[in-house]
Amino acid sequence: MDDNFEDRINTDEIAALIAQKDYRTLRDTLNDMFPYDIASFIATLTQKERMLAFRVLKKELAADVFAHLDGDIQEDLTMSFSESEIASVLEELFLDDTVDYLEEMPAYVVDRVLKVLAKTNPDMRKDINTFLQYPEDSAGSIMTIEYINVNQNYTVEDAISKIRRVGLNKETVYTVYVTNENRVLEGVVSLRKLLFADNGDIIGRLMDTNFIYAYTNDDRENISAIFQKYGLLSLPILDRENRLVGIVTIDDVVDVIQEENTEDFEKMAALRPSEKTYLKSSIWELAKNRLTWLSILMVSGMLIGLLLEAFEDALIGILVIFIPMITGTGGNAGSQASTLIIRGLALGEITVKDYYKVLWKEIRVSLMIGVALGLFNFLRVLIQYPNLEQGTLKTAFVIAISVMFTIVAAKMVGCMLPIVAKKIKIDPALMAAPVISTIVDGLGLLFYFGMATIILHL
Amino acid sequence: MDDNFEDRINTDEIAALIAQKDYRTLRDTLNDMFPYDIASFIATLTQKERMLAFRVLKKELAADVFAHLDGDIQEDLTMSFSESEIASVLEELFLDDTVDYLEEMPAYVVDRVLKVLAKTNPDMRKDINTFLQYPEDSAGSIMTIEYINVNQNYTVEDAISKIRRVGLNKETVYTVYVTNENRVLEGVVSLRKLLFADNGDIIGRLMDTNFIYAYTNDDRENISAIFQKYGLLSLPILDRENRLVGIVTIDDVVDVIQEENTEDFEKMAALRPSEKTYLKSSIWELAKNRLTWLSILMVSGMLIGLLLEAFEDALIGILVIFIPMITGTGGNAGSQASTLIIRGLALGEITVKDYYKVLWKEIRVSLMIGVALGLFNFLRVLIQYPNLEQGTLKTAFVIAISVMFTIVAAKMVGCMLPIVAKKIKIDPALMAAPVISTIVDGLGLLFYFGMATIILHL
Repeated sequence: MDDNFEDRINTDEIAALIAQKDYRTLRDTLNDMFPYDIASFIATLTQKERMLAFRVLKKELAADVFAHLDGDIQEDLTMSFSESEIASVLEELFLDDTVDYLEEMPAYVVDRVLKVLAKTNPDMRKDINTFLQYPEDSAGSIMTIEYINVNQNYTVEDAISKIRRVGLNKETVYTVYVTNENRVLEGVVSLRKLLFADNGDIIGRLMDTNFIYAYTNDDRENISAIFQKYGLLSLPILDRENRLVGIVTIDDVVDVIQEENTEDFEKMAALRPSEKTYLKSSIWELAKNRLTWLSILMVSGMLIGLLLEAFEDALIGILVIFIPMITGTGGNAGSQASTLIIRGLALGEITVKDYYKVLWKEIRVSLMIGVALGLFNFLRVLIQYPNLEQGTLKTAFVIAISVMFTIVAAKMVGCMLPIVAKKIKIDPALMAAPVISTIVDGLGLLFYFGMATIILHL
Repeated sequence: MDDNFEDRINTDEIAALIAQKDYRTLRDTLNDMFPYDIASFIATLTQKERMLAFRVLKKELAADVFAHLDGDIQEDLTMSFSESEIASVLEELFLDDTVDYLEEMPAYVVDRVLKVLAKTNPDMRKDINTFLQYPEDSAGSIMTIEYINVNQNYTVEDAISKIRRVGLNKETVYTVYVTNENRVLEGVVSLRKLLFADNGDIIGRLMDTNFIYAYTNDDRENISAIFQKYGLLSLPILDRENRLVGIVTIDDVVDVIQEENTEDFEKMAALRPSEKTYLKSSIWELAKNRLTWLSILMVSGMLIGLLLEAFEDALIGILVIFIPMITGTGGNAGSQASTLIIRGLALGEITVKDYYKVLWKEIRVSLMIGVALGLFNFLRVLIQYPNLEQGTLKTAFVIAISVMFTIVAAKMVGCMLPIVAKKIKIDPALMAAPVISTIVDGLGLLFYFGMATIILHL
């Protein structure tokens, strides 16, 4: 993108137009820009300037810009809008964007919007109510009801003139859905196919009856997998009676993919997933999302301390020195394995059935790494501490075999826990570095001091 | 999905058709299926059966299925194909898929394919050579050259008849690119706009001259960000002279997003990124990808051990018992912060300029968490060890303040290192849990035993 994208908006220049009250130039400039850029610009303005900038936008563009704004700005704008402005924005907004927006708003804003709708557009209010009832991570919650449907008896010409009449935006227009009188989906026709056909051809004969679909209650994570597998631009969503109730489009799927990834990153770092971006989160929210797991893991760390207490006699200087290395290496080795497995499961590259394959792979990999790093430590102790009281050779052996055991145990735990979690329907992402390290710390130290007690007779 | 997708393919039934040599039914069945499903089915067959199944596919579908197959199966098939079969598959394959495929093949396969091309399609061979030269993570490496371009003097009717004539697939057809005689991109027209226009309208007057584009050398990570911001289906890619050389389509962007995420997951877990999936990787590759960082971090763990050695006098039982809790909590606290910042940077929600904002936020959050968990530990020591030799109250204070310091230090390091890395053009994902924990282990223990020495006079 180079300068091209960074310099797309000269915010100072446009802000100057507002200051100079040159609304005519402002209108021309803004209406020529992309929605995302206008939204980025509006975010830099004061509340009063925002209203001015927003009011010069053309109706359709205004709605598109509104959908791109952050929740707090949407909230401010909504409360400053007149009732007719609210009605006008909502009229142009895609229904899925409207629902996204309302889900983010505090109750008093939703209240105002729904009251306006009850007056101006009771049908839309009903649709919104239906949408708000779909489970949060379902296909229903990300679908839109703006699509083009025809019936089998339409000709190509009828269909194209319906597309022109309805005149929808972007990807929603590139597939036409064929439904019967009960709204049951019978087939799909791509705009491309319409273009290749003769005007008089009958849709019923052109349509593809072998199409991919999903249900409103299907998990949105599966929906994104379907888009990737089948290279779709949109996907029809049916209710339990196979009636077409909406479509999911690729742009929403891209958002879902990123959200699901963010959720995994958060869970894997012992964070409670959050809907808000970092900079938008209050310090209370941030602290709350971190404290739960941090406390749980801290208590586990204390239990490991008690373990050490049980081996108090073995806590002589030389052995203590190796504690951070053993627990650190174990934690890292375990999180390497668990990360690969968690990611593989998320992308569908690994399934629960691959349990033994994964285990066998990790046994071999961990033995290779364990022997190498164990040997390294063995030599290090021999060289660095040649005259240990309790016997250099024995001590080196205890440390080397403990490093090896810890690595093997870490890889086993790291690869198995995510698969077991998946099997018992817990999110595998929770079985990541923090949990794995804690378990491996315990196992590694138990083995280490156990060996020390036996071999060094402490 | 439900049963619908899982049961889409009855592999046993189709496999039976091959066994019964009922190629007619096999052909009808397979040619009615989706490319992804056929590829999944073919993966379950023996090499000989694969050739049989592949040969009944229609030409265009065969290429599409081929693009969906895993590298090892593509390799086997390529070596079993006749020269004319290779030529036929390549002819139907999109150029970006061809390049992806060749990049994965071992040299002897690439050699065979290029030799066939030299004979049958020297132009394509030249195109492929150009493509193979684009940097691996660039826009050039993911673009396709299959797009529709017209010049300004075309009428709408001309343009539509060109679309019909070229007859490309899917999303490549939904935007028409307007270029001049030097192939410089002058504007774009969506198929939707063509549909709304009159047949005689001139493209030059319909086209949008305010369009988004990128250059061949732009980073593919930025390309995917542009798609998300502007809700695009395709993006024109220009060379340094602003000539149109290809387009990137949304389906490839979805793949890029997932690959970039996987790379981040791997780097954040101290793994060298790998192009292969887990199950396809040999144990040598897995061990190699893990050993580098594991060794580096192990040596750092040893340095922390030396730190403990320096405090040998302070290594009395009660203090040692708290080591795992302090280092564990520090590591987890640090990786929580670093994960949020790394993810925020990757999604563009946080920029390097937010340095102070982030730092100030983390100072407050970490003080809140630090005080809470420090207090908890203070009370715990008082209750659990009421009669310590070196003074219960003092010991409790040392432990509490060390927990607090470690958490605050962990959050500082965790939030700053990724931003600093970004600033000096290192991948922020490398500044994740493993590196952060190692640094925080050192800082935490240094403070802990330092305090113990001073306050408990050890």
